[in-house]
Amino acid sequence: MSEPPISHDVQETAQGRTRRALPNLIAAMYRPPIDEIEFVLRHLVPFETLTKLDEFSHVDLETVHGILDESGRFFAEVVAPLNRVGDQEGSKLTEPGVVTTPTGFKEAYAKYVEAGWPGVHLPAEWGGGGFPYTVGMALQEMITSACMAFSVCPLLTQSAIEAVLQHGSDEQRGTYLENLITGRWTGTMNLTEPEAGSDVGALRTKASKQADGTYRITGTKIFITWGEHDMADNVVHLVLARTPSAPPGTKGISMFLVPKYLVRSDGSLGPRNDVRVVSLEHKLGIHASPTCVLAFGDEGEGAVGFLIGDEEAGMAYMFTMMNAARVSIGVQGLSLSELAYQQAVDHAAQRHQGRLPGASANEQVLLNLHPDVQRMLTTMRANIDVMRGLLYTNAYYLDLAHHAADESERRSAEQHASLLTPISKAFCTDLGVEMTSLGIQVFGGMGFVEETGIAQTYRDIRIAPIYEGTNGIQAIDLVGRKLPMDGGEVIRHLMAEVEETVNEMSAKTSLATAAGSLASGLAAWRSATDFLLEADPLDKLAGATPYLRMAGLVLGGWFAAKTALLAELPARDDNWWEQKLKTSVFYLEQILPPAAALLPAVTAGADRLVAP
Amino acid sequence: MSEPPISHDVQETAQGRTRRALPNLIAAMYRPPIDEIEFVLRHLVPFETLTKLDEFSHVDLETVHGILDESGRFFAEVVAPLNRVGDQEGSKLTEPGVVTTPTGFKEAYAKYVEAGWPGVHLPAEWGGGGFPYTVGMALQEMITSACMAFSVCPLLTQSAIEAVLQHGSDEQRGTYLENLITGRWTGTMNLTEPEAGSDVGALRTKASKQADGTYRITGTKIFITWGEHDMADNVVHLVLARTPSAPPGTKGISMFLVPKYLVRSDGSLGPRNDVRVVSLEHKLGIHASPTCVLAFGDEGEGAVGFLIGDEEAGMAYMFTMMNAARVSIGVQGLSLSELAYQQAVDHAAQRHQGRLPGASANEQVLLNLHPDVQRMLTTMRANIDVMRGLLYTNAYYLDLAHHAADESERRSAEQHASLLTPISKAFCTDLGVEMTSLGIQVFGGMGFVEETGIAQTYRDIRIAPIYEGTNGIQAIDLVGRKLPMDGGEVIRHLMAEVEETVNEMSAKTSLATAAGSLASGLAAWRSATDFLLEADPLDKLAGATPYLRMAGLVLGGWFAAKTALLAELPARDDNWWEQKLKTSVFYLEQILPPAAALLPAVTAGADRLVAP
Repeated sequence: MSEPPISHDVQETAQGRTRRALPNLIAAMYRPPIDEIEFVLRHLVPFETLTKLDEFSHVDLETVHGILDESGRFFAEVVAPLNRVGDQEGSKLTEPGVVTTPTGFKEAYAKYVEAGWPGVHLPAEWGGGGFPYTVGMALQEMITSACMAFSVCPLLTQSAIEAVLQHGSDEQRGTYLENLITGRWTGTMNLTEPEAGSDVGALRTKASKQADGTYRITGTKIFITWGEHDMADNVVHLVLARTPSAPPGTKGISMFLVPKYLVRSDGSLGPRNDVRVVSLEHKLGIHASPTCVLAFGDEGEGAVGFLIGDEEAGMAYMFTMMNAARVSIGVQGLSLSELAYQQAVDHAAQRHQGRLPGASANEQVLLNLHPDVQRMLTTMRANIDVMRGLLYTNAYYLDLAHHAADESERRSAEQHASLLTPISKAFCTDLGVEMTSLGIQVFGGMGFVEETGIAQTYRDIRIAPIYEGTNGIQAIDLVGRKLPMDGGEVIRHLMAEVEETVNEMSAKTSLATAAGSLASGLAAWRSATDFLLEADPLDKLAGATPYLRMAGLVLGGWFAAKTALLAELPARDDNWWEQKLKTSVFYLEQILPPAAALLPAVTAGADRLVAP
Repeated sequence: MSEPPISHDVQETAQGRTRRALPNLIAAMYRPPIDEIEFVLRHLVPFETLTKLDEFSHVDLETVHGILDESGRFFAEVVAPLNRVGDQEGSKLTEPGVVTTPTGFKEAYAKYVEAGWPGVHLPAEWGGGGFPYTVGMALQEMITSACMAFSVCPLLTQSAIEAVLQHGSDEQRGTYLENLITGRWTGTMNLTEPEAGSDVGALRTKASKQADGTYRITGTKIFITWGEHDMADNVVHLVLARTPSAPPGTKGISMFLVPKYLVRSDGSLGPRNDVRVVSLEHKLGIHASPTCVLAFGDEGEGAVGFLIGDEEAGMAYMFTMMNAARVSIGVQGLSLSELAYQQAVDHAAQRHQGRLPGASANEQVLLNLHPDVQRMLTTMRANIDVMRGLLYTNAYYLDLAHHAADESERRSAEQHASLLTPISKAFCTDLGVEMTSLGIQVFGGMGFVEETGIAQTYRDIRIAPIYEGTNGIQAIDLVGRKLPMDGGEVIRHLMAEVEETVNEMSAKTSLATAAGSLASGLAAWRSATDFLLEADPLDKLAGATPYLRMAGLVLGGWFAAKTALLAELPARDDNWWEQKLKTSVFYLEQILPPAAALLPAVTAGADRLVAP
């Protein structure tokens, strides 16, 4: 591993003689948690089911291990060193229409493309590695921990890839896919406008059809992640817009591909298209990620756009891409919790402070021997473990939904993935905020000083509960669209699976208390679900957020229970398994119980809220 | 009110033609919640009890109203406009030993002193206003909402004043008190050193006695809030140090007064003392507050220091000042939640986004009509209300502890204040972090953009759970020192008071569910208390943090219950009282229930935590 960069920013002394009174606490470099990821793939996700599919017959866990090991080293050595400099310098609009990324980003991105990491889980036919998304998620987890601001560039590109892959014409696929999948070009998603955020249907960007079959796009899009930059030769924008005759709302939305540079028929780059960055946002976090205001058609009749699929089908296409995109944002909650955990663990293992009961004044001990610090670290670790279980399981269902041999199996997997998706996104990103805040707390006063790096982790993650559908929107999606699937049978099936685990655990004396806790959570979840399936529309909306939290906690308990059952087997007698057992029982006994207490909030109804 | 300052920071476009695509959403100016504060003084705190004391015979609620109204206007008009520029510019070390505050700070501070606001609750004998601390808290609440970074300067000065007032010699009081109380000079507290944070007893700064009775202080202190600046003529440092023969740990600590400029016998400023700022921290928030590394005695034999009280009594003096200082940090949690609430309410009342169930595509409504947004705003408001109840009650007990006529009354009040203090500090600052985060969520994507101001509120408050004793230290103080007072009788008395309110509420049919919720919380709190009073030392430490949270939630429920009982009286039929009723019932029915579910975490014991 390369040396961590030296930070100078606290040494803001005007004196010749520089004095640094704080202990030298530059955050240690990220360590990819390969063991933890492989535990989930091996034991919580039936990964073997995937390797039996035709699509993945070349995949086995040994190959996967090699990929995780090698890519993890790359992310730790090449990407993680960008994190701090990226925060300090930020991406900048250095001249009209030109965004310059922080020192080292361009070079690191070139190495990333060169190494072939962008397309590991994308189709081999177009230059990808042909591995399951479940494996791609592992790479996404690691690159995000290493540098979240960097990671969102390939993340958005993946959404653009999905759009072209699933809905593009043969010509569009031929022109764009390989360039995007290899990472030579990057992609963006252009949804938001000043008056159309959560309410996408309110967008106003116009698209008018030309005689040659192309469209001219005019309008302004905001919050466009990596909308312009200097790391790739071309940027491919997927843009939602409205044709002149389109009906209002989401029904009238079409999707267009608008490349920064038009592509000639031989594949070479042609003229500059009329899409330009006009400003960057000054954000709380992920400073290295340029968040652009993009103007389409400011210089003439409009940017040249190519229709994806059919007119007025744009929103339907968005929905097909939405699950993977949203689960990927959930991963950010996991990744930054993991980073914060590593930062906090390192700090607590280095810093001597305070004494244990009965010790004399001179006997300062390490922070990590204090029970209250152990509570914080155990809480972080337990939440990280259940997030990983939930997210990779969600990814597994997405793989099955695409590639299972049987139609009914695909449909069932698709429903399971759809049900879990809003929970993955919202529960994990809320936890990301909470766990990084705990990380700051472990650092004490040094947590509030930017030098230690944990404050950046806390700032960076705060966007995750907001973008790709706010967590409130996720809760409404869960309650309004997902619970009613098949008349409630999908969620009932999931709850029945949790019940099986409760029963299995109840039979083990040492896990009886933990089993009781999961049973109580499940009972409350059932009551809450029954209530919401029948509730009035406004009452559903009022109960949605506490319901999603409850669902996340109980599902977390389910993964903790599966882990505890694996860990308490007699053969597991080493320290790693002992800690897994302790962590999962801690989750069940100490983190899960408040879930059931959310029932009154779920069922209270809209008229108990204060209206303006 | 003055106009809000225009922000330019998002307009980072390099083009001549500047384009601002985001709606113009500069955070509205702070509005002092005088009605809310007076509700608490009038109805939740028996303020009349204070006005009957000799010390406060000149005080009545009408006079208090005048003060709140006038000072509130001052904070809104003169201090609030500093908040954003203070964040953007920050205080800077502009040349060796010189700290320059952001634009406008020096002038605003001069007006603040001129208006007489610093000393409203301090003794009239030394230039103060002679009002209760309970009134001083109202001013502190408002100045902190207006600009937290500014407010911590007078806040730290108050701690220095307390030290001199309670433990200084007549000469020291004569020399320093009036200058500090009027705000002409400011004060600091110097505790922390690189290896002595939460563990104050580990400090190493030395003090050696001279023939003339003064001491020479040598050493380095860190995290010194407003340790150097340009707003006042002198800075008076209260410094903890160790004499050569002192025993290790907290027992060997003495307190010294070290002025930046020595004071001549005629009161004029004499030579510069050998205490100098050598660097400033680069922090997550409160950028305008210079957080200094101070070097004592770098240029010669040591800074000249004057012993406060007796040698080796420094820690005892710290404890006498600690309650007020810690409660004041709790107020920051309230103040920034209030600010975030005002910011969120304004945003939700201006922004149209989304539709209600059954509406057509064109019918965008205001954000504040969506039940999920109403849930966020109601949650903020309900938590703000109970924080205000808790903090002003704590202040009331501190006033009684100092000024009640009867010795046993003073002792009882002192115990109540001591019991509530760690809860006020930790519960309210944790809520400050959570409520400002909810505020960001109400803003959606614009919450992550610094322009709207809510991100600053979120960054600023994050220090509050850390300084003046981390929230973990507060929990340990509560469990280790406060519960055992009088063999547990103090906390049992408080719980009996809560029970009376439960009984009163149970008699009202419309409040029966809310009463049941409070009864359940109280029952769990009793079990948790009984457990901890008997528990092993390590188990007490392990359960401390969830116990404090539980205590805060149940006490919050108590204040909500008192409010509900007042609000449901038949005479209260206007909108203000209706909202108070709804908000307090919401707290009881929807926020309080998870309190009881913390019992397993309180009682699990230290061996359930993962050790390194």
